[in-house]
Amino acid sequence: MAERNIAHLTATEARAELEAGTLTSLELVDACLARIAERDSDVGAWAHLNAEAARKSAQEADARRAAGKSVSPLTGIPVGIKDIIHTTDFPTEYGSSVFAGNQTSEDAFIVAQLKAAGAVLLGKTVTTELAFFGPGKTRNPRDLERTPGGSSSGSAAAVADDQVFLALGSQTAGSTIRPASYCGTVGFKPTFGYTSRTGVLPQSEPLDTLGGYARSVDDIALLFDAISAHDPADTGMAPGNRPSLVDALAEPGPKVPRFAYVRSPGWPQAEAAMKAAFDDFAGSFGARAEVVETPLPAEFDEILRLQQIVQFSDIARNYGPIADANPDAISAKLKEIIAEGRTFSSSNYAAAREEQESLYEALCAVLGNYDAILTPAATGVAPIGLASTGSPVFNGLWTYLGMPCISLPLIEIDGLPVGVQLTSARGSDAALLRVAKWMTTDKGARG
Amino acid sequence: MAERNIAHLTATEARAELEAGTLTSLELVDACLARIAERDSDVGAWAHLNAEAARKSAQEADARRAAGKSVSPLTGIPVGIKDIIHTTDFPTEYGSSVFAGNQTSEDAFIVAQLKAAGAVLLGKTVTTELAFFGPGKTRNPRDLERTPGGSSSGSAAAVADDQVFLALGSQTAGSTIRPASYCGTVGFKPTFGYTSRTGVLPQSEPLDTLGGYARSVDDIALLFDAISAHDPADTGMAPGNRPSLVDALAEPGPKVPRFAYVRSPGWPQAEAAMKAAFDDFAGSFGARAEVVETPLPAEFDEILRLQQIVQFSDIARNYGPIADANPDAISAKLKEIIAEGRTFSSSNYAAAREEQESLYEALCAVLGNYDAILTPAATGVAPIGLASTGSPVFNGLWTYLGMPCISLPLIEIDGLPVGVQLTSARGSDAALLRVAKWMTTDKGARG
Repeated sequence: MAERNIAHLTATEARAELEAGTLTSLELVDACLARIAERDSDVGAWAHLNAEAARKSAQEADARRAAGKSVSPLTGIPVGIKDIIHTTDFPTEYGSSVFAGNQTSEDAFIVAQLKAAGAVLLGKTVTTELAFFGPGKTRNPRDLERTPGGSSSGSAAAVADDQVFLALGSQTAGSTIRPASYCGTVGFKPTFGYTSRTGVLPQSEPLDTLGGYARSVDDIALLFDAISAHDPADTGMAPGNRPSLVDALAEPGPKVPRFAYVRSPGWPQAEAAMKAAFDDFAGSFGARAEVVETPLPAEFDEILRLQQIVQFSDIARNYGPIADANPDAISAKLKEIIAEGRTFSSSNYAAAREEQESLYEALCAVLGNYDAILTPAATGVAPIGLASTGSPVFNGLWTYLGMPCISLPLIEIDGLPVGVQLTSARGSDAALLRVAKWMTTDKGARG
Repeated sequence: MAERNIAHLTATEARAELEAGTLTSLELVDACLARIAERDSDVGAWAHLNAEAARKSAQEADARRAAGKSVSPLTGIPVGIKDIIHTTDFPTEYGSSVFAGNQTSEDAFIVAQLKAAGAVLLGKTVTTELAFFGPGKTRNPRDLERTPGGSSSGSAAAVADDQVFLALGSQTAGSTIRPASYCGTVGFKPTFGYTSRTGVLPQSEPLDTLGGYARSVDDIALLFDAISAHDPADTGMAPGNRPSLVDALAEPGPKVPRFAYVRSPGWPQAEAAMKAAFDDFAGSFGARAEVVETPLPAEFDEILRLQQIVQFSDIARNYGPIADANPDAISAKLKEIIAEGRTFSSSNYAAAREEQESLYEALCAVLGNYDAILTPAATGVAPIGLASTGSPVFNGLWTYLGMPCISLPLIEIDGLPVGVQLTSARGSDAALLRVAKWMTTDKGARG
């Protein structure tokens, strides 16, 4: 019998084995550490690791379980944390030398929830510079000559490469979905305001959303159920408890889902191979789903620019003082964006914020008829080279509109993954995951 | 027996008489028209009147009632409409010669609701220039040498002077509450997003709120119940139906209400006589209410400026093109504000919008302990002269925070009114009206 590949289990499978007693948390952690030891010099997904602390935390989880104490679904599961999220156990360096060795005195609200759930914090994953475009050291695990995407580079790469079961990312334009697409894993950005951002580097308050990576849709539900408690300090969060996503996935999804196939304004910038593969994918459902190609009205033509006006203005505000104080430590590209952000007037910003709502309302008229929008996650497979993290033209608009998005690794082009993105109305996170699960099971999968 | 003063009835009393058959709508309209004929050359509250159309509309309401057809609480009640609200029956001139004779082809969403309720549109009331500070022709009915306040000058003056039973205003800084205080009537600005703004001149989307005037708190409930239907086209409106305010007022209010007495950052700009009268008022409840002087934390010091950054930026955006195209027709003051609004960067605006939420959250910590905040409505009695409409320093902060506000004519200084303002948490409109009603009845009234 071949040795079991424990590190390749889904978090849901790992949880079941922990509960059945067929695996321990220490075995999970050791499997991750072994995989990291084998791959880290190539992939470089981690900014900070602490094997000893992780093993100790796993042993505590195992002891807790052995003693019959209460445990939660994430107890003993290793999780990676994007290095813009504050942790008392690790430095938080924001992917910038300006913050080398930066040690925060408090855990982010979501980290505190992970700890309370008994999750094992395996380490901090590489982020691009201040979660913008300056690449970190991470390489794409599917092809080391290619970018993993960004800004949540390390989280996507580590989950895709079986180095950890779950990882946290974030998205202001396309920082969760694009790396998921490039690395070939499941990436999820919930509705704006679904999780707390207290203790997370702020880039753009009306856009910043916590995201996450996993190897299945069920795993995404497991992760987000653990971190969705209401945080009164994050005024972007709607009050009230989130219904359980795990429970929602136990309910049946739509029998014959209806998809709006929206190529979106980024389409002309996509690669020919991706366009062909995506059209082929959209046409492959036959009677198992209804797929209606749905053009966006002309008023959406400027939406990518509107997203940038908000994002770049807020970058100028939030990062400008950092760049001014440390000009030599900040990338030229980021300084350029700060300068651009400073050119926008308050009227530009207010108009872009107003359009955010009115375009969403306009889209709702379309969404009323469909279970989800089917749309590309990226312009193509991960680009060759590490200097750029690729283009977010298939992501920024959905982030701007505050809609939940998921990327599913369902397409391959010449052996490299491209994500299928699904998005739907604000607040429909559970329903979106149900459609995503349908799509990743035999029922939805092609042919 | 002296002749009845029909025009002085409250809307609630008028409604009861219509239902009892002791008065007709035509009698209500004629009583208003008679009062207007007597007073209009002095007060100048109306931009457009159409006696014939109003009498016809009243006769239709009376016929409807006589025929036993369904009627609503406002059927047959005369209402005035601020002249920034679109009406197909009257021009809408926004208080500016640029829009002389401007005839809109659609009714504002709220006007359509008033018509559907069977209310009689008596006419359009004078607004200041584009609902900002340039005064209209209206004089304060309590002292013709004084300003009525603004920008809802005509609506406040007309209701205070018994020329109409109810009137619509609006508030971006202090345009509803301040005129109520100066003219001595009840003025109400609900929670941001309570009513639709479709078909109302936009000044600042994150601040603009429809307001209203009446001679009692019950009348305010009557008016707002008729105009609070959800309008999907106004993205500032929260979905869902508003519970009936009239029903809420039928429930008992708090037995011993608890008030936070908040002097607020405008206090140093207030007149000595107002300060003394207000302190005296706040101290007069004895055991009938709990009044706790509550200072705002230091972070509120800049709140008036933050409100201006949002308002002036949006004025630059919305009115700038009008002023650029018609420089001679726009007041120097408004042009100055447009120029100032244009100096703010997108970062200034985004920061002010973020503070809007975080300051509200900070205030909620205070509000949790109190039924309402008790705070001045204006810096003093209406100032002498018509060149200025007075200062909104006691209003802009609450508008900025999106909180419901009501001004009650409970203080007089040398025979002139000053309003007592109550405000409370967003969405607590019904509870606020209950407290206001308590305060205006024997139970709450002084001594």
